[in-house]
Amino acid sequence: MHKILKTLLAALIVSATSSAALAQQAPKPEQIIKWRQSAYQVLAWNTGRIKNNVEGTYNKDEVIRAANTIAAIANSGLGALYPAGTETGKGWRETTVRPELFTDGARAGEAARKFNVEANELAKLAASGDAAAVKTQFGKLNQTCKGCHDDFRKKD
Amino acid sequence: MHKILKTLLAALIVSATSSAALAQQAPKPEQIIKWRQSAYQVLAWNTGRIKNNVEGTYNKDEVIRAANTIAAIANSGLGALYPAGTETGKGWRETTVRPELFTDGARAGEAARKFNVEANELAKLAASGDAAAVKTQFGKLNQTCKGCHDDFRKKD
Repeated sequence: MHKILKTLLAALIVSATSSAALAQQAPKPEQIIKWRQSAYQVLAWNTGRIKNNVEGTYNKDEVIRAANTIAAIANSGLGALYPAGTETGKGWRETTVRPELFTDGARAGEAARKFNVEANELAKLAASGDAAAVKTQFGKLNQTCKGCHDDFRKKD
Repeated sequence: MHKILKTLLAALIVSATSSAALAQQAPKPEQIIKWRQSAYQVLAWNTGRIKNNVEGTYNKDEVIRAANTIAAIANSGLGALYPAGTETGKGWRETTVRPELFTDGARAGEAARKFNVEANELAKLAASGDAAAVKTQFGKLNQTCKGCHDDFRKKD
């Protein structure tokens, strides 16, 4: 009986250790903030490319690649990168998110929805190669970026 | 005649100034390095999500979102983020790229091609919802990541 108790105790300790190990695998807030800051940088790279194309020489293939990247990130579920515990903190740098993003879920969700709609429409138009339509739609997309920044990003 | 010369000179100065202004609009090496470091962070976020799904509870929708993001970045033309002048430098941090990426274009191109092929295949399989096939394909994708890191990324 004594031996059985020791075995059970050992099993409990192993179990607790495993749980701790699993918990450690969850990404740290710093990593999550770094990921979301990175996602916006990739968006900036690709919106910059589209801007260059609609204001300069239009390269259909480059616009498609850029628009598809923007749409994929818009559809990726960026909301998962704003869990509780990441209201403040440093990823690549101090987060510039405003507390309202965490407290006004309805408004944040609506901002994300608008961004998704316009990003997916842009990808659709990019595939058509209609430069004028892409330019107009790119303006709509930028409005959703600006709207979200105004509401949920601290001023630099 | 003297007046015409002055006008021509003025025009040349305006032209030179405009060229300088345009040149200033081109992204700086630091910005380009930041973009590429960000792209790999977004890849890390999404490969991490797929890993969690194939090793734990499988959520078809999350895997689709993650695989589509990886494929879009693979197809985005990351090569454009390695122009001459970005062999060294600091984006979010000092670049870890090895000089071979800039001197062995054929090998770097082949590494990028393999990554694209496996990333696009993963997105295709993710859409099917076949968890076992996704797991196998995810292993193939990781091999292309590792191969490229071995050849072209400095050890931490």
